[in-house]
Amino acid sequence: MNIQELSTGLDTIWVVLTAAMILLMEGGFALLEAGFVRHKNNVNIIMKIFADITIGTLCFYLIGFGLMWGKDAAGIIGSNGFLIGGDLSQLDLTISTDTFWLFQAAFVIAVISIVSGAVAERINFRAYLLYAVMMTAIIYPIAGHWIWGGGWLGKLGMLDFAGSAVIHGLGGFAALAAAIFIGPRKGKFLPEGSSKIALPSNLPLASVGAFLLWFGWFGFNAGSTLSATDVRIGHIAIVTMLSAASGGAATLLYTLFRYKRSDAPSVINGSLAGLVGITAGCAFVSDGAAIFIGALAGLFMLFASDWLEAKGIDDPVGAFPVHAVSGMWGTVAVGLFAADDGLFNGGGWELLGIQILGLVVLCAWGFIVTWGGLKLIQLWIPVRSTEEEEEVGLDVSYHGMVAAYQEHEFIKYDDHFEAAEEDNKGS
Amino acid sequence: MNIQELSTGLDTIWVVLTAAMILLMEGGFALLEAGFVRHKNNVNIIMKIFADITIGTLCFYLIGFGLMWGKDAAGIIGSNGFLIGGDLSQLDLTISTDTFWLFQAAFVIAVISIVSGAVAERINFRAYLLYAVMMTAIIYPIAGHWIWGGGWLGKLGMLDFAGSAVIHGLGGFAALAAAIFIGPRKGKFLPEGSSKIALPSNLPLASVGAFLLWFGWFGFNAGSTLSATDVRIGHIAIVTMLSAASGGAATLLYTLFRYKRSDAPSVINGSLAGLVGITAGCAFVSDGAAIFIGALAGLFMLFASDWLEAKGIDDPVGAFPVHAVSGMWGTVAVGLFAADDGLFNGGGWELLGIQILGLVVLCAWGFIVTWGGLKLIQLWIPVRSTEEEEEVGLDVSYHGMVAAYQEHEFIKYDDHFEAAEEDNKGS
Amino acid sequence: MNIQELSTGLDTIWVVLTAAMILLMEGGFALLEAGFVRHKNNVNIIMKIFADITIGTLCFYLIGFGLMWGKDAAGIIGSNGFLIGGDLSQLDLTISTDTFWLFQAAFVIAVISIVSGAVAERINFRAYLLYAVMMTAIIYPIAGHWIWGGGWLGKLGMLDFAGSAVIHGLGGFAALAAAIFIGPRKGKFLPEGSSKIALPSNLPLASVGAFLLWFGWFGFNAGSTLSATDVRIGHIAIVTMLSAASGGAATLLYTLFRYKRSDAPSVINGSLAGLVGITAGCAFVSDGAAIFIGALAGLFMLFASDWLEAKGIDDPVGAFPVHAVSGMWGTVAVGLFAADDGLFNGGGWELLGIQILGLVVLCAWGFIVTWGGLKLIQLWIPVRSTEEEEEVGLDVSYHGMVAAYQEHEFIKYDDHFEAAEEDNKGS
Repeated sequence: MNIQELSTGLDTIWVVLTAAMILLMEGGFALLEAGFVRHKNNVNIIMKIFADITIGTLCFYLIGFGLMWGKDAAGIIGSNGFLIGGDLSQLDLTISTDTFWLFQAAFVIAVISIVSGAVAERINFRAYLLYAVMMTAIIYPIAGHWIWGGGWLGKLGMLDFAGSAVIHGLGGFAALAAAIFIGPRKGKFLPEGSSKIALPSNLPLASVGAFLLWFGWFGFNAGSTLSATDVRIGHIAIVTMLSAASGGAATLLYTLFRYKRSDAPSVINGSLAGLVGITAGCAFVSDGAAIFIGALAGLFMLFASDWLEAKGIDDPVGAFPVHAVSGMWGTVAVGLFAADDGLFNGGGWELLGIQILGLVVLCAWGFIVTWGGLKLIQLWIPVRSTEEEEEVGLDVSYHGMVAAYQEHEFIKYDDHFEAAEEDNKGS
Repeated sequence: MNIQELSTGLDTIWVVLTAAMILLMEGGFALLEAGFVRHKNNVNIIMKIFADITIGTLCFYLIGFGLMWGKDAAGIIGSNGFLIGGDLSQLDLTISTDTFWLFQAAFVIAVISIVSGAVAERINFRAYLLYAVMMTAIIYPIAGHWIWGGGWLGKLGMLDFAGSAVIHGLGGFAALAAAIFIGPRKGKFLPEGSSKIALPSNLPLASVGAFLLWFGWFGFNAGSTLSATDVRIGHIAIVTMLSAASGGAATLLYTLFRYKRSDAPSVINGSLAGLVGITAGCAFVSDGAAIFIGALAGLFMLFASDWLEAKGIDDPVGAFPVHAVSGMWGTVAVGLFAADDGLFNGGGWELLGIQILGLVVLCAWGFIVTWGGLKLIQLWIPVRSTEEEEEVGLDVSYHGMVAAYQEHEFIKYDDHFEAAEEDNKGS
Repeated sequence: MNIQELSTGLDTIWVVLTAAMILLMEGGFALLEAGFVRHKNNVNIIMKIFADITIGTLCFYLIGFGLMWGKDAAGIIGSNGFLIGGDLSQLDLTISTDTFWLFQAAFVIAVISIVSGAVAERINFRAYLLYAVMMTAIIYPIAGHWIWGGGWLGKLGMLDFAGSAVIHGLGGFAALAAAIFIGPRKGKFLPEGSSKIALPSNLPLASVGAFLLWFGWFGFNAGSTLSATDVRIGHIAIVTMLSAASGGAATLLYTLFRYKRSDAPSVINGSLAGLVGITAGCAFVSDGAAIFIGALAGLFMLFASDWLEAKGIDDPVGAFPVHAVSGMWGTVAVGLFAADDGLFNGGGWELLGIQILGLVVLCAWGFIVTWGGLKLIQLWIPVRSTEEEEEVGLDVSYHGMVAAYQEHEFIKYDDHFEAAEEDNKGS
């Protein structure tokens, strides 16, 4: 055993363990989204998460990883590394390529899971599968190349430590595009312009989803060092915690004083907004800045939710407010608060300008390519569920089953399908 | 890369990962407590956990950490380190102060979460927020200073490795004080002296809560070494496992033979009692002692639950039996079984005496200051919910929402509030 | 600090953390199984998991560990190491024996948890406790000795890296024996030969169980290196991920095209089948082979489920298809795909032959000793629940409580028991 082997081993287990934590976030997404949507669509939303993690993993293995991390071609795209093959020495890793891949795969699955929430309760399941392929094979990997894989945004000097911009900004704008493209759920907005709500089918589940996401986020941010001897790890972990706490506290107190009751979905999403907000800057900003970033992320999330309601855009679990808005704020905040080059630390306007430019590019990319991709899918398969499928519930329509059966006796398989349909319609 | 950097990196990831595991215990507390209380108070108890983790984190950052870990003043209190600032070289850490802070923050949040269970279903949410500030900013940090931060109990030689006394004893007695102060839930005790029960709203959720807590406890106990090269880690982990298993097995078999049925809440709490019981001694006692400690912790927990019923004290999730009683037993057990100085290992009465002294002081502190604190809060805000709030359920009263909606259609926001109130009253 | 201490510390935290991850899989088993069985048996199945982890841990401590890892006697059995005592230097560990024990304890608890699913909804709880003692003290430890503890199968050259054969094959065949011995649930198969189904009581819970299992599996497979500097860790982790993804994707697409709906329980079990399938070969096969192994594991799982239905064998959560069938396939696949000696890599028939021999022996051992053990238990306690206990539900019958109470008011303890019985019967 020599010191080099030891160091490699240390980095390896750090990355494997944090990657596993990020992958557990899929359980968090599943619970959070299932808890927020209506009961009749619980199974479907979880099956979308399973599609993300199963099909997304394979697509990233086959295509996405190479586009993102392969040898740079013109600052735009990676050109080798498909199936983790070829010469990837330009990555200059202290860990094995396999280990690195696992960590990157956990990221791409998170991106597609952001979109799954925004199209909840009304997307055709087959169309979603096709879109998941696009996102994990192409859309995110190309943008990821720009900022992290050796592409033009990274060369410009844009800072996005663990992905407020490229994960949450891009993912959140893709979610927005999909939500607009597909239209609101039937009955959500009334003809006269007012809106109605669907209350959470299970808040305890959604809460636990948030705690799993919070846990995984330590892997997301601190693991992004890719090295256990990176001296920033402690600081990254602590600002992650402070920003999340601050986002949750801000929404808890704001809704308490404004509406006389602490609104649970707002507090849950406020904590997540704090986490998203600090994701870009966790390696660059101070504790105090993290508390400020988190608190504003929580409040911006609330205002963005109201804005969506006012605009008649239906985003059932708040993917746009939580991911896109907090992600934008977090990316800009790096330009303001970064210890070295932030505007408020005497760094001038340059970094801030680069952050904004990169942000606009990444969000526009997410929005436009998603829109185009759905147009393309539409040529082949209707992207939106039929009215009847939506009415009955996507669980029965696409999976032949509702989420929870309380019967104590056995039934014939064929009967159950009709009964479930009946149940759902009747309620 | 030199060996010192490697060693620091190793300790850092150990502490960050175990801190994240402890923070995931908040998800465990949320599920455990939500599963045990009545359905109409599920959201509220989870929101209290969110308050613990969000507001508690910020208070500990601003004030608590300094009081606990700052430079010692007269053995009583820490005097710097607020906002993690100032000279903290007396801590003599191998890891960064940030990393150390994260681990300590995870502890304080666990303490306040113990109390949240005992006051379930009947505390005014705003009063709880104020109490959470007191606990995380002042009550626990000062006591923590005495034992761990350089204060008089530590100097006396009291042993409390990961906090049976200062976390669970103090937290459990604070819970008792709060439960007595606030009085039993309406309908819990009948005028003629007998008591009635509220059955768990969701045992599967409570069980998973216990598994998350169990998982986190490995971080709690083994992580308390703060160093990955501490040779005791393996031993700490194994006695943690054995004591938990023993506590669970004891309650499983006891209730099976005594009542002819293995009582699920008892088994869940018995495992947790085993975990609490070993928390003080995990670095000091043998495997065999751990099994003995765990089994007795489980049984003491059962007897303490009966005692509370007989005394007319209402502790809905068993915070006092699980945390205070097992914590006391675990602290005393160190005096009996510690490998070096325990009574049964020829160490004489000295350590045992110190353990008992420290225990009495910490528990009394938790009880008295909590009582005083609630008196203080009472001057401003009624600590107890109104009869109507309690009747309707704290979920609707304080959060405007119940835990689970099975409706499949949209409703107007204003309607839902009234409907939920109606629902809850009618049942 | 020298390099040797550092290396030991690194290996120690790796094994402790991965052991904790494996133990969290018990939470996964609890949710998965509770979500799949009928509501009236939710508490019981979780209490069985608690029995596994509490009683199983103690039995393995007292007896099992010695039989498995003690000094080899004739290639058949370990002969010391009970209570982790005696000279265990033959293990040649870089970590402490305590640390090693914890990891092994996590494995044995997983084995018995496999069986708990197959006997769900109809086994006498006391009989199950006795069987759990047998499995964790004797059945698995002896077989484990053969392959890993210095016994004859290991000496022959059988490869079973993290236990497709000895954990999942053996466990799955024990599950099959128990399911046949005990017979199908009342009402499952109709006299004319057709079968009926019980729909999952809670699919979101089952899904989260799968995610927890998936998370723990990284600990299971990668942790089995027992050394953080093992250069295979990254590869092990990535093939674990690819095989799981492939198993899930295969079942998702197969059920989508075959039945026009993606069947959620199939996708959940398909992912798990992919994980089981790669468990033997994760250190030996390529990425591409892992994808192939996972996909076939998923499909074999589906066909095996149909086979059980056709044969009139009732396995409520699919323990045999997921664990035994995928475990067999995974073990054989090592003989086909192993990088060094696999048939398809020019290694000839030898390894394949050894794998098949070992597999047959391990599965037969699991089946036969389980059958004999249940016969023995039957002499003392009826292994099967009475008709009335089954009708009422095991929750009320053995634990005096159902899984979820929605009442908002208090009741007398004695009343609740009758009411629950009434409720369950009436539905």
